[in-house]
Amino acid sequence: MNNIHSLDGQSGIVVADAGCILQTLQEYTAERGYLLPLDIGSKGSCQIGGNVATNAGGCYFNRFGGLHGTVCGMEVVLPQGQVIKLNLEGSDNIEGYGGCHRKDNTGYDLKHLFIGAEGTLGVITKVAMACPRLPNSKNVALLICESYAAVLEVLAAAKEELGEVLSAMELMDWSTLSLVQQHMSNKEEFMILNEILRFEGSQNQAPLYLLVETQGSNAEHDLSKMDSFQTRLFESSIISNGYIATDSKRIGSFWNIRESCNPSVALDGYVYKYDVSVPIEDYMEVAAEVKECLSSKASFPLAKVCVWGHLADGNAHVNVVTPGLFDKDEAFASYVDEAVYGSVLKRKGSISAEHGIGQSKRDILKRVKDKSALDVMVQLKAMFDPRGIMNPGKVLLSEGKSATSFDS
Amino acid sequence: MNNIHSLDGQSGIVVADAGCILQTLQEYTAERGYLLPLDIGSKGSCQIGGNVATNAGGCYFNRFGGLHGTVCGMEVVLPQGQVIKLNLEGSDNIEGYGGCHRKDNTGYDLKHLFIGAEGTLGVITKVAMACPRLPNSKNVALLICESYAAVLEVLAAAKEELGEVLSAMELMDWSTLSLVQQHMSNKEEFMILNEILRFEGSQNQAPLYLLVETQGSNAEHDLSKMDSFQTRLFESSIISNGYIATDSKRIGSFWNIRESCNPSVALDGYVYKYDVSVPIEDYMEVAAEVKECLSSKASFPLAKVCVWGHLADGNAHVNVVTPGLFDKDEAFASYVDEAVYGSVLKRKGSISAEHGIGQSKRDILKRVKDKSALDVMVQLKAMFDPRGIMNPGKVLLSEGKSATSFDS
Repeated sequence: MNNIHSLDGQSGIVVADAGCILQTLQEYTAERGYLLPLDIGSKGSCQIGGNVATNAGGCYFNRFGGLHGTVCGMEVVLPQGQVIKLNLEGSDNIEGYGGCHRKDNTGYDLKHLFIGAEGTLGVITKVAMACPRLPNSKNVALLICESYAAVLEVLAAAKEELGEVLSAMELMDWSTLSLVQQHMSNKEEFMILNEILRFEGSQNQAPLYLLVETQGSNAEHDLSKMDSFQTRLFESSIISNGYIATDSKRIGSFWNIRESCNPSVALDGYVYKYDVSVPIEDYMEVAAEVKECLSSKASFPLAKVCVWGHLADGNAHVNVVTPGLFDKDEAFASYVDEAVYGSVLKRKGSISAEHGIGQSKRDILKRVKDKSALDVMVQLKAMFDPRGIMNPGKVLLSEGKSATSFDS
Repeated sequence: MNNIHSLDGQSGIVVADAGCILQTLQEYTAERGYLLPLDIGSKGSCQIGGNVATNAGGCYFNRFGGLHGTVCGMEVVLPQGQVIKLNLEGSDNIEGYGGCHRKDNTGYDLKHLFIGAEGTLGVITKVAMACPRLPNSKNVALLICESYAAVLEVLAAAKEELGEVLSAMELMDWSTLSLVQQHMSNKEEFMILNEILRFEGSQNQAPLYLLVETQGSNAEHDLSKMDSFQTRLFESSIISNGYIATDSKRIGSFWNIRESCNPSVALDGYVYKYDVSVPIEDYMEVAAEVKECLSSKASFPLAKVCVWGHLADGNAHVNVVTPGLFDKDEAFASYVDEAVYGSVLKRKGSISAEHGIGQSKRDILKRVKDKSALDVMVQLKAMFDPRGIMNPGKVLLSEGKSATSFDS
């Protein structure tokens, strides 16, 4: 269940078993000149079947789109045992019918039902993904902004000036990077953090940090775009400082800093984690409102709010850390839930941008999601899995409950 | 039902009623600095709701992906009258919940069921699409190749050298362009066709024509890429000639030639039309095999096979034209069906790349599509529309038949 079956040199479509480790698949396509259009921090251990079942997002979503766009074929085993081939070689109707193609418009596009269903409708056993060409050049800038208004100016400039080579636009706040530095074992990355975290405090607000990546086909053009972008931002005081990495070692360091956000906060204490979509203008507002709520809550005076995420998608990872405490406090969790979701709902946000529902968001899902849509979800679950044997308790139902109604 | 509701200046998400004309929506987003990532020949009359319901593909699929990737929100009316809001402002559960976001991973992603269902599961009433920034520059090349092997070399070079600015890669054969010229009323476009259609006939094979478009953020970089691409192809004799358009008038002429393929063949006679996906290596093989079959069929000795389409997606429009005859011949239609589908199936192709199923491909769908997938489609139809009132007779069922079984 972890074989890679083929990579079509013309179309760039790779076909792999669900159990293939994401990083293994990335390396396989890269060796053959193609870029797997999915990258997430856990690439060394997560599997492509799970990535697809949970509709993983990640850092390249803004450039290459989500899995609903890039997954072009699938094999799924249904609860009753049938194996469905969707735009993937080997129909059970005509032998060998249906290679994998970028375009296949033959009836209801069932594979999308399994993308993000978290295994509750069937088990994905094979995945086909369309890969673009591997870029010839990559550059990464680490930029420091003194305000969120400045961050928005950087975003607009990146879309305009970097345009089609912009491949990632990640935001990290000062609280997060302080924890990353505190737990950083790599000396070079520690020194980078040491340099960028020094700030005079002349402003009321801590700075914000942007990781901006370009990927393109022409190294000279790409670097020229990145250079003039950064120079203009610096000269017009939109950024207070900026560093460009062009060699793979330093690019790796910048990315390692970004990917250390999640493990670093976890080393500091128990983390109450949220993954939300909000209007891009409001990206930092949820954290600000949660901080405000926490300041009035004396029980956890040391709690910190750390924010990072995929700025260009409006996808913020909001983390409330309780330093030195490593057990979940249920009462505090409910309090933080109310604070975060209250702020998100007020802004017409989404309670789950890319992490899905699982068990922990099942109750809030019932409260906010369109009722008619929920009804259809329940009907679909009952149709596919009447005995409720597929990943019970996730997304919709509690374990042991009938598939035809909600747990209430 | 044809209002445009909003365009978010940060996220680029546009929300419009289903009845909005595609071209109107394109113009609306362009005036605000965004590119609607869908373009098809019928843009002046087709409506965005129909585009989404039929999962329209078109010329920009290769660059921006399909509608499953770009449609990020939807309002649908179900057969029983419920209105579902999917990642679109206005849940029926919490007032105002759910603006439209690029990322929303809250349960089964139902909107994909309606993309390409051709109105048989519900009626799409609103659509939200994520738009990239409008490009600052656009260039179009019209290239002439003497063989399909050369076309494949151009495709590989375009992916490598034009990379991220490549926005369209369209192929047209000589038979098609001859008919376009014959029916062309625009003098300038007639002259372009006159020039490119002259060929010495020293080869056994008629030439093939490629329309290659780039769109990007930096005019100087983009033109430099296009120029060196074309120069290298010409110097290495991969193309026998090439023309680059950089001003909007000439770009419009090149595109008008491409978009005249469909109406021009229809002026010549009745057209037996096919829209298939095949492995890119085999792009011209289906037409070659159909020609071979027709040469042995004396009843329509004048029938011509015309091919054009979206090369980079492996999506070929194969058209058999019967000059001077404007009625369908059922026996001949069956003969051509067998020839085309036989060739497509042998190559593990798809019988519908982007045009959907409708009525005319309902029978062939039953013959080729994975049986287990068909079963699920029938169950879905029965679940959503037990009375069979939604666009009856399309995709799965004949009119008046129960929704729980196939017409047989």
